[in-house]
Amino acid sequence: MQVLPGLVNHQIRLASRPVGTPTRDNWSFTTEAVHEPPPGGVVIRTLYLSLDPAMRGWMNDAKSYIAPVGVGEVMRAGGIGLVIASHSPAFAVGDHVSAGLGVQEYCMIPESHLKSSGLFKVDPRVGSLTQWLNVLGMPGMTGYFGLTDVGQPQPGETVVVSGAAGAVGQTVGQLAKIRGCRAVGIAGGTAKCEWVVNELGFDACIDYKGGNVREGLKQHCPKGVDVYFDNVGGDILDHVLAKINRKARIIICGAISQYNNTAPVQGPKNYLSLLVNRARMEGIVVFDYADRYHLAVAEMAEYLKDGRMKSREDVVYGLDTFPEALLKLFNGENFGKLVLQVAS
Amino acid sequence: MQVLPGLVNHQIRLASRPVGTPTRDNWSFTTEAVHEPPPGGVVIRTLYLSLDPAMRGWMNDAKSYIAPVGVGEVMRAGGIGLVIASHSPAFAVGDHVSAGLGVQEYCMIPESHLKSSGLFKVDPRVGSLTQWLNVLGMPGMTGYFGLTDVGQPQPGETVVVSGAAGAVGQTVGQLAKIRGCRAVGIAGGTAKCEWVVNELGFDACIDYKGGNVREGLKQHCPKGVDVYFDNVGGDILDHVLAKINRKARIIICGAISQYNNTAPVQGPKNYLSLLVNRARMEGIVVFDYADRYHLAVAEMAEYLKDGRMKSREDVVYGLDTFPEALLKLFNGENFGKLVLQVAS
Repeated sequence: MQVLPGLVNHQIRLASRPVGTPTRDNWSFTTEAVHEPPPGGVVIRTLYLSLDPAMRGWMNDAKSYIAPVGVGEVMRAGGIGLVIASHSPAFAVGDHVSAGLGVQEYCMIPESHLKSSGLFKVDPRVGSLTQWLNVLGMPGMTGYFGLTDVGQPQPGETVVVSGAAGAVGQTVGQLAKIRGCRAVGIAGGTAKCEWVVNELGFDACIDYKGGNVREGLKQHCPKGVDVYFDNVGGDILDHVLAKINRKARIIICGAISQYNNTAPVQGPKNYLSLLVNRARMEGIVVFDYADRYHLAVAEMAEYLKDGRMKSREDVVYGLDTFPEALLKLFNGENFGKLVLQVAS
Repeated sequence: MQVLPGLVNHQIRLASRPVGTPTRDNWSFTTEAVHEPPPGGVVIRTLYLSLDPAMRGWMNDAKSYIAPVGVGEVMRAGGIGLVIASHSPAFAVGDHVSAGLGVQEYCMIPESHLKSSGLFKVDPRVGSLTQWLNVLGMPGMTGYFGLTDVGQPQPGETVVVSGAAGAVGQTVGQLAKIRGCRAVGIAGGTAKCEWVVNELGFDACIDYKGGNVREGLKQHCPKGVDVYFDNVGGDILDHVLAKINRKARIIICGAISQYNNTAPVQGPKNYLSLLVNRARMEGIVVFDYADRYHLAVAEMAEYLKDGRMKSREDVVYGLDTFPEALLKLFNGENFGKLVLQVAS
């Protein structure tokens, strides 16, 4: 294999499994030459990487919905890139694509992995490259299928979503409004809450940092909670459980409050509210809906075009900032979908 | 209203709300004369009362699926009785009936309450009077609709039920076998476990008192757990959550391990297994299925007749023993459906 002249691939690999919050010591920094792709393969230059709470789970050596990242492997990450070399008839140099690129500057995908890497072309006219990692990407799909398929919101119902200013939360709340529901967010800080209400059009947003979530739910969900989309777990899940209506649906999408715990996960003390209210708590993993992504993307693209769906990305620059950038997710510092720009 | 000559109604009333395990001090003992029923009403002599874990919840002043029993009121209880006076065309003296009779020897039901008391005739040829409080009664209905409607077991799947030797558990496991599933019980003590396997035909039963539930699940659920019918909560719920399969269904029917807690309820620490496995946890309240009881009773009566369904009742004698008899449920002393015989 010929080396693509002059190109050096900077990579970030998992050096050790973190206990609690990951530190720079858990990562190693390597460089490799970039080669011509083998027949049928492509080489992609990473432009943007998606930073997601789920990444913390992939760093643990635990059975989950996906295999853990091995120690010594390039850290797994979805991203948007530009095809710079192709021996595949399906992709041309200059195509923008989405794929599991990993935390590195260049990604070679052999023909045998084109499908499993989730590689597909993205159209920058439908949405910006960062929107393709947000409302048109995995977080958007997660929000879309979690809300519509698991939550099944009916017009007039009250939908609550935590992490409301995050990638998934943005989608869920705006989609709830489009479906004729009352949308109430939970987010951290005045700026995020104001943005969620004023820009995204939620009916209300409860500031879990500055306010009292229990009181906020009482005030903003006068008819109780029919659907709760949970991204955070912990006390907030318990507060919402205390306010659910009969036949409520709780979508378990994540538990960001618990991911860096060294203590055992905090189970929902109020789970018997499920019994009293004949309610349902159900997990969602977005990959299960892969065969319907194209339908959801088409629908969301319409909403982006007609202005009913907005998005915000929090873009951090430079591959080397990855270790610190990731932590923004866990202290709630990111404002909008967190994206790492690797090249332009 | 004329007094029915010579009849004295002994009653047990809630005197105060218990903190933790109820004691005799939480009850008061009263007597009343028994009157002729008003036009359209009936008087019933209590024969058997159903003692159920749910009664503990009714003693708390908390929002639930049913109003709490008021302090000073006769304790709520379902039961089987004999009509001894009737001014209702629908019921004749000598009829056996099921109704919310309360913990008392006689119950007068006025015409206006005939429906809300759940009064209906039972046929002793279809099942014994105690079976009408067990597999043909509320516990049976709870097991039936919880398993079939919420659990939706498919042939070949593994169904686990806790409280397997209890009223609901008996029904769930036997019904799971009838539906072509592998049935694994969890119960306390060798005698119960052996009975569940040898008499009821479960494939296995794990002794939570003498054994290790985690190891037991590993051994007896080699293909994982598809449906879990939870009557107990606590650590056992967590152990099962760690073993569920993709798209598993967990029916939350009760949490007997938690009912006398003075500490907060123990939430399931492993609830994120719902996410990893795209699984569902859902509450059931049997009253929601009232319009289909007759169908389930007819089906269960067939199984009783052809021997595919068996039942065991643990009968305690005498109204006065109620305070202590109730506690058998919470320390696992009852073996089979706990029933209080008040008269014969």
